Amino acid sequence: MNKKIKGFFLLLTVAYSVSGAQTLTSPNGNLSMNFSLQAGGTPTYSLTYKGKTVINPSKLGLELLTEGAKRTFDDFSPEGNVPGDKGKKNSLFDGFEVLDTATASFDETWQPVWGETKDIRNHYNELAVTLKQSATDRRMMIRFRLFDDGLGFRYEFPQQKNLIYMVVKEEHTQFAMTGDHTAYWLPGDYDTQEYDYTTSRLSEIRGLMPQAITPNSSQTPFSPTGVQTALMLKTGDGLYINLHEAALINYSCMHLNLDDRNFVFESFLTPGANGTKGHLQTPCQSPWRTVIVSDDAREILASNITLNLNEPCKIEDTSWIKPVKYVGVWWEMITGAKDWAYTTGLPSVQLGVTDYTQVKPSGRHGATTAHVKEYIDFAALHGFDAVLVEGWNIGWEDWFGNSKENVFDFVTPYPDFDLKEIKRYAASKGIKMVMHHETSSSVRNYERRLDTAYRFMKDNGYDAVKSGYVGDIIPRGEHHYSQWMNNHYLYAIEKAAGYQIMVNAHEAVRPTGICRTYPNLIGNESARGTEYQAFGGSKPNHATLLPFTRLIGGPMDYTPGIFEMDIEKINPGNTSHVNTTLANQLALYVTLYSPLQMAADLPENYNRFPDAFQFIKDVAIDWDESKYLEAEPGKYITVARKAKGSPAWFVGNVCGEEGFTSKIALDFLEPGKKYVATIYSDAPDAHYKTNPQAYAIRQMNVTAKSKLTLKSAPGGGYAISIVPKQ
Amino acid sequence: MNKKIKGFFLLLTVAYSVSGAQTLTSPNGNLSMNFSLQAGGTPTYSLTYKGKTVINPSKLGLELLTEGAKRTFDDFSPEGNVPGDKGKKNSLFDGFEVLDTATASFDETWQPVWGETKDIRNHYNELAVTLKQSATDRRMMIRFRLFDDGLGFRYEFPQQKNLIYMVVKEEHTQFAMTGDHTAYWLPGDYDTQEYDYTTSRLSEIRGLMPQAITPNSSQTPFSPTGVQTALMLKTGDGLYINLHEAALINYSCMHLNLDDRNFVFESFLTPGANGTKGHLQTPCQSPWRTVIVSDDAREILASNITLNLNEPCKIEDTSWIKPVKYVGVWWEMITGAKDWAYTTGLPSVQLGVTDYTQVKPSGRHGATTAHVKEYIDFAALHGFDAVLVEGWNIGWEDWFGNSKENVFDFVTPYPDFDLKEIKRYAASKGIKMVMHHETSSSVRNYERRLDTAYRFMKDNGYDAVKSGYVGDIIPRGEHHYSQWMNNHYLYAIEKAAGYQIMVNAHEAVRPTGICRTYPNLIGNESARGTEYQAFGGSKPNHATLLPFTRLIGGPMDYTPGIFEMDIEKINPGNTSHVNTTLANQLALYVTLYSPLQMAADLPENYNRFPDAFQFIKDVAIDWDESKYLEAEPGKYITVARKAKGSPAWFVGNVCGEEGFTSKIALDFLEPGKKYVATIYSDAPDAHYKTNPQAYAIRQMNVTAKSKLTLKSAPGGGYAISIVPKQ
Repeated sequence: MNKKIKGFFLLLTVAYSVSGAQTLTSPNGNLSMNFSLQAGGTPTYSLTYKGKTVINPSKLGLELLTEGAKRTFDDFSPEGNVPGDKGKKNSLFDGFEVLDTATASFDETWQPVWGETKDIRNHYNELAVTLKQSATDRRMMIRFRLFDDGLGFRYEFPQQKNLIYMVVKEEHTQFAMTGDHTAYWLPGDYDTQEYDYTTSRLSEIRGLMPQAITPNSSQTPFSPTGVQTALMLKTGDGLYINLHEAALINYSCMHLNLDDRNFVFESFLTPGANGTKGHLQTPCQSPWRTVIVSDDAREILASNITLNLNEPCKIEDTSWIKPVKYVGVWWEMITGAKDWAYTTGLPSVQLGVTDYTQVKPSGRHGATTAHVKEYIDFAALHGFDAVLVEGWNIGWEDWFGNSKENVFDFVTPYPDFDLKEIKRYAASKGIKMVMHHETSSSVRNYERRLDTAYRFMKDNGYDAVKSGYVGDIIPRGEHHYSQWMNNHYLYAIEKAAGYQIMVNAHEAVRPTGICRTYPNLIGNESARGTEYQAFGGSKPNHATLLPFTRLIGGPMDYTPGIFEMDIEKINPGNTSHVNTTLANQLALYVTLYSPLQMAADLPENYNRFPDAFQFIKDVAIDWDESKYLEAEPGKYITVARKAKGSPAWFVGNVCGEEGFTSKIALDFLEPGKKYVATIYSDAPDAHYKTNPQAYAIRQMNVTAKSKLTLKSAPGGGYAISIVPKQ
Repeated sequence: MNKKIKGFFLLLTVAYSVSGAQTLTSPNGNLSMNFSLQAGGTPTYSLTYKGKTVINPSKLGLELLTEGAKRTFDDFSPEGNVPGDKGKKNSLFDGFEVLDTATASFDETWQPVWGETKDIRNHYNELAVTLKQSATDRRMMIRFRLFDDGLGFRYEFPQQKNLIYMVVKEEHTQFAMTGDHTAYWLPGDYDTQEYDYTTSRLSEIRGLMPQAITPNSSQTPFSPTGVQTALMLKTGDGLYINLHEAALINYSCMHLNLDDRNFVFESFLTPGANGTKGHLQTPCQSPWRTVIVSDDAREILASNITLNLNEPCKIEDTSWIKPVKYVGVWWEMITGAKDWAYTTGLPSVQLGVTDYTQVKPSGRHGATTAHVKEYIDFAALHGFDAVLVEGWNIGWEDWFGNSKENVFDFVTPYPDFDLKEIKRYAASKGIKMVMHHETSSSVRNYERRLDTAYRFMKDNGYDAVKSGYVGDIIPRGEHHYSQWMNNHYLYAIEKAAGYQIMVNAHEAVRPTGICRTYPNLIGNESARGTEYQAFGGSKPNHATLLPFTRLIGGPMDYTPGIFEMDIEKINPGNTSHVNTTLANQLALYVTLYSPLQMAADLPENYNRFPDAFQFIKDVAIDWDESKYLEAEPGKYITVARKAKGSPAWFVGNVCGEEGFTSKIALDFLEPGKKYVATIYSDAPDAHYKTNPQAYAIRQMNVTAKSKLTLKSAPGGGYAISIVPKQ
């Protein structure tokens, strides 16, 4: 080899390290991604699925507010606490060259503590690109994991002398779409996801945004084209794309801001009270950014990418973590028939000052001893695990909207709630009580009292807590989805694990699969739940979208099971209507996977429809297998699940405004085995608005060879229980 | 009486209730104040002393951001979390009429747990004016207490339906001066008081402000004429005026902003992270605003107004609260001779990750077991109560300036600090250990760990803690002096009381007499302490100003007793000079009252001057009586104090740049009794800069009839111990 040729090879190598182009393929070859450096040393990636472009070349990187230099005791800065922009050091988005690339493959099957399936396969090919920014002598790694059903990638920041502490101004991760796709979106917001979904083209988001932003107790929209993740998309040529994040830990929640001229989404992080978007110390990493993609919508629902990108379980003994089916003193307050508060007429109350034994009870208080006992009796009679009671503790008279810090103490019951007697009574009936910790978003107050509150729970026989974060966050200026708050939610979960307490956090940041690592996080709200059916109603197709969006990150305590759709019948002052049929409500126990399921309606409403209620009593809440049979976002979802450790199967279908004719094969059943199916379906004249309680129940013999055609009404659905024939 | 005259009387009554003029006189008649409503219904007050005007008519009131209306669950507001200005409802400064006035007198003598005097008389006449704002149907009370040595007043907000929750935009309390007085001022700042005092006319503040703002680890000045309280003033006709506040609880710290055309100070509260200046719930009240006034500067120093305006002690059993004289592993780190940190060279450290047993010690770590034992030996040999050790716990390698939240755990010692052995050794020598909790201003982290940290203290024999708040506050955007942080400091004090722990908080908000209510708050820094003598030096008259300013609110852990003024001799790399004489350092134990006194220099420096050190060993730290003999702010202070439960007296004098010839009569001694006085004075050629260690010690017999003339050098002073002749 002569010198000239040697030089040529060398040049190739240099060219290679400047553009750094790398291709990674998924195990089955369907997905392919490319990484390269654009001119100027900007990292970019693109993604294809079966040869179709999913993500056009998209930029990657972060922008910083400080350069990560260390201030010492001898370096008193008169600049105070405003971190300044310092030239090139703020860029972690250009000036890079590729220092190293490494590939790997991974294939493992693991067992969740609870879940949609007994086994979860974690199978991907990995590309880790180490980048060097010569001008600053800094390194950053981007790690890509390509699964058969999607892509995950994150930024990793090794410990290094020129990158120690980082203040994030913004993350500039792009997701460049190939066209004006259909999106199923929620307004981007720092404080709430409790919106109805809007279905529109990307180009229509800006125009539809004002009407999409409906009022909430705490809300901070940030952009006319800002949307939340998990974001579901559908392309003109039939690809389904889901954008979300996994393992959101010690980082701020990612929203997406759309450049609606070029259809490019870019990450938009939630700021803290001082406007910064993240404070990091190396070594550290971002959450995973995920792109789930398929030409079959059912595969989006079946994807386990989000769980797989989280760390394995950190709780050693998980024997105390158990799925929970429960009822509770709740819907009557949500509908306005009863109150959380004990009294009315006081201008305000103060912990330790207001003497509740001296005030006049309003007579509208829900959480009375006698009433709770009725729920315990009902739960015991029908085989539920537990009873939730909201409004049991003092402080509800002025609990939110006032930026009141010292709002709840989490340990003092109202005078008409006999904690000890309820403990005794529930235990005598074999019923667990679910604690309720509404924090009113007063987070310092909650943290100060958290140990006492958790100990109080254990002392009184409570193993699970529903926590709530209604209203604006205190510390004032913080947001529900900022790094500060995300850190708090995890603190509450980790501390609860120490007490062997399960957590179901409402209004917290939407989940990102961390229940794999902390399976005591058995539920979250973090979306528009059933309560909105009593606040004016949700769109009939709402439940056909939640599994494509909110549930991508983890289970939701949606609180289904409403049998009385005219709220007026519960509270004459409330004309809200529940925009589903009764059969649809039954189906939700199957279509909305959760290890925590409530039967949310009043006992008297269940007593009116005991045959339909039987499904709620029978349905499992933990599963060996799940089969997504039919799915189209906004239109319909049909899923079959096999109960954990049991031969019984349950099938659920929900649909939207147009109704749906479902055609399913029961080929998931054990071949040759005979089963009895009980089918709870909409009656022919059922309709979510005009005739929601019209349902039909029939039984039939089925086998693995059976095929069923079932018609679901507008806003309707069906539920089936399938048990081996005796 | 005819109808016409009746109408006239009626008019008079209305006129009275509109202007509402009221006069209040102090018990001895020296002070007189007037309250009235200005046109437009603005409350105003004025104050005279012996017929001289102290405060010209000055406005009173607050401005709100919300109207205090309650938001309910049914009233979801789309406005989000930005409270808006809502017309007249924002005013609590005009539109008032007088609804009621009430006067009262009070005279009580109480005994502090520790203090400058055994008994404190609380004697005042009170005027409480209840104001009604008809346009909003709201009420506010202003309560004035007029003592013989000054005025205190505060706003009180009764519980009422139209004023429930308040967001304070600003408090508009004025202090209208009568002329271009001399002020002894610090730059107003939301985060630090660690500045040198500037002495100037009011009209000169604006021009001198830039040079007055010297660098600090966290600082936020807010106005070119903003100054801190306690603010000391002197008028052209010889009046001494001190403006401060008392009982700063659940409210933000008050600064003063000067209108330097009219010489009117107005309150300027410290904002929180979201820019608001206070969140209040009625019933509640502001702290007291205080005006101490006299034509004799000594009476300013002797005033107990600040303590008297605080609530009585809330701690039932105070037997565990004891004054403490201590030494500590500290000055060698402050001077830079040793380090708090165990190692150097790591880019950063992480709790629970960094394995200190595997890192290379720098060899500069101060808090080693062997070195601490030397301090324990020294303390035991010389009769000290306790030893403070800073830098004993992991985390100091990158402790501040990085907005690092998870910085200290308060329970894990460095590998070279044998906690158990030190506990054993100290106990065997009868020495208490003082714990150190530097928080790095990471307040959530501290609160999360506070119970564990306090329990750890008790388990290991620590009864007192020095806490520190260096650097910018986390939650980010909050300030050291905001309501949020003031709430935290009190939380830490109250929780400590539950563990029978005494607190000495550094960098916390300057005290306002709350040590009366919580006497376990035995010290604060909250001003420029001795450490600045190693950071370039303080002005020679600094200690002649602290008692007129910082100490008005409570004792300071000033850490006096420096014998070696050339810091180079401790650390060759540090050329700072301590700008006092050695005799001045001795005097500080008497002139700067504190129940917590450190002998801050290194044992080897005390060993070089054992005769002078004897005074530090002898001097008391708790007192039956205190007599201010001579005083002029910035020039000199001479005080005599009788040791608690002992016939011994101690006298101290400090002076400024010009030196001072002190002439005192010992008429405070018991008549007819013979005493021996040991006088530690500057040598004739002493000078703080050129000859600071030149002192002379002599003994003489004295009685109550003795008179002494003593010359203090520039930056000098003297100390005398007087004990009964055997």
